[in-house]
Amino acid sequence: MQEHFARVKDLARRITKVENESDNYQAILEGLHPSKTPLIGITGAPGAGKSSLVNALISYWLEQGKRIGIVAVDPTSPFNYGALLGDRLRMAAHFNQEQVFIRSVGTRGSLGGLCEKIVEISDVMKDADFDFVLIETVGVGQSEVEIAGLADMTIVVLTPDGGDDIQSMKSGIMEIADLIVVNKADRPHADGYAANLIRHLHEQDREVPVLKTVATENKGVDALGEAMLHHLESGRINQKRNWLLTEKAFRLIQKSRMRDIDRNSLYDDVSRESSQSDFNIYAFAKKY
Amino acid sequence: MQEHFARVKDLARRITKVENESDNYQAILEGLHPSKTPLIGITGAPGAGKSSLVNALISYWLEQGKRIGIVAVDPTSPFNYGALLGDRLRMAAHFNQEQVFIRSVGTRGSLGGLCEKIVEISDVMKDADFDFVLIETVGVGQSEVEIAGLADMTIVVLTPDGGDDIQSMKSGIMEIADLIVVNKADRPHADGYAANLIRHLHEQDREVPVLKTVATENKGVDALGEAMLHHLESGRINQKRNWLLTEKAFRLIQKSRMRDIDRNSLYDDVSRESSQSDFNIYAFAKKY
Repeated sequence: MQEHFARVKDLARRITKVENESDNYQAILEGLHPSKTPLIGITGAPGAGKSSLVNALISYWLEQGKRIGIVAVDPTSPFNYGALLGDRLRMAAHFNQEQVFIRSVGTRGSLGGLCEKIVEISDVMKDADFDFVLIETVGVGQSEVEIAGLADMTIVVLTPDGGDDIQSMKSGIMEIADLIVVNKADRPHADGYAANLIRHLHEQDREVPVLKTVATENKGVDALGEAMLHHLESGRINQKRNWLLTEKAFRLIQKSRMRDIDRNSLYDDVSRESSQSDFNIYAFAKKY
Repeated sequence: MQEHFARVKDLARRITKVENESDNYQAILEGLHPSKTPLIGITGAPGAGKSSLVNALISYWLEQGKRIGIVAVDPTSPFNYGALLGDRLRMAAHFNQEQVFIRSVGTRGSLGGLCEKIVEISDVMKDADFDFVLIETVGVGQSEVEIAGLADMTIVVLTPDGGDDIQSMKSGIMEIADLIVVNKADRPHADGYAANLIRHLHEQDREVPVLKTVATENKGVDALGEAMLHHLESGRINQKRNWLLTEKAFRLIQKSRMRDIDRNSLYDDVSRESSQSDFNIYAFAKKY
């Protein structure tokens, strides 16, 4: 128990250092070992029940003696915050469990995007002694695309409320999902919605399992857990691995090369120079 | 007439050079003059009727003797392609008009994102002799966020079919819209949908005009044109201008600094090195 707390405390500290780029964070990152721990992304619209689903999955895995790390990406939007905070508090029931570690990170700026340090934080989590690491993100703007470039497996959570706009709204989401969950499946039209979805995926030659759950009642969660394991063990994530590593390397290189560019100073420079009549942004950018 | 064709041909050539980075494209870019031509982004889900709306706006402006440049960003998704091609062909009715120039560009890769050269292409368009430059993009994935970082004014096109998922799906879109169009407003529930939207925006303290149109019948298009002009002349786009220039400068610097990184070679490097047991992506990325 004592040892466990020390380990958790150490993990929390390492994440904080990486998040803030403080102390020896670079050494922490370069000291990470190759990890086989699967990183699972869970995304979906606000109100789809992602946190309830994560909650239910935690219970399911705890029964199997698994250890789980969760990264919950908070949206900056004040509009969503209240509701999510409620979910987070519900999830906190698991905080006392020895085998669950939950870390909430902010999105810091980028509109609809993930936390700027999400790559690094998830790598530190993967390096710890978990069976699964989950990242829960709100699927607005670009975060669902970013998560697909990061996670070994991406789960998209939908609700039957979406009605007939499957075709119109979700083509972007369809492309990134390794598995689709229709949550709140006890609602009217849920079966029709799921059938519609399956037919639509079939038309696009996409082999994506569609599972129905009622997360708040733990319904369908066992089947979901099994389907996830099946996907993770299918070898498909190995096919994806080098592509994910390339994306990650690209992002890290980009970040490192842009490190000296401060947006506020850039704003000041642009504002000053653009007031001149011969201002040209291409000539301006070339100077950096 | 002769002179007009020469000008259009020259514009098309300049765009092609910039798109392909061929010949003197850098000189073309650095020779651009500061332009006051407003850049208007039109985004929305596939099927929302964006192309019909653009079509109707073109007719409206032509009646006023305006000259209009259009950049239509084609999605790479084969799923959307057929329908859009149809729209594009309809728009082609305007091709013979002297005052309309339509350029279709591909998205080339980036999932749901805009064309990699969209910043440069829209600047070349703004440098030509148009009263308005419009960029039409399909709002999936991150393109709607990208357009907001580029256009002086962003118009989001919705349809009443969305039903009650305003709250859930559209918070990302809400944040970027300067003006919202509820198209296909002759459908059932359209009034309720628009009222719902207005109430929702009000709750978030967002002052965004909501206009109803039936683009295929030219209904509501005059009012839309006036509302757009009102926004463009309100001074709000000046407040946004330095922020937009900063974003643009940031992207240009980033692109220039990453120019030597080829994703395919990076993939090969990552694949080779990651097979070694002591592989660490942070140490790997540091070498570049």
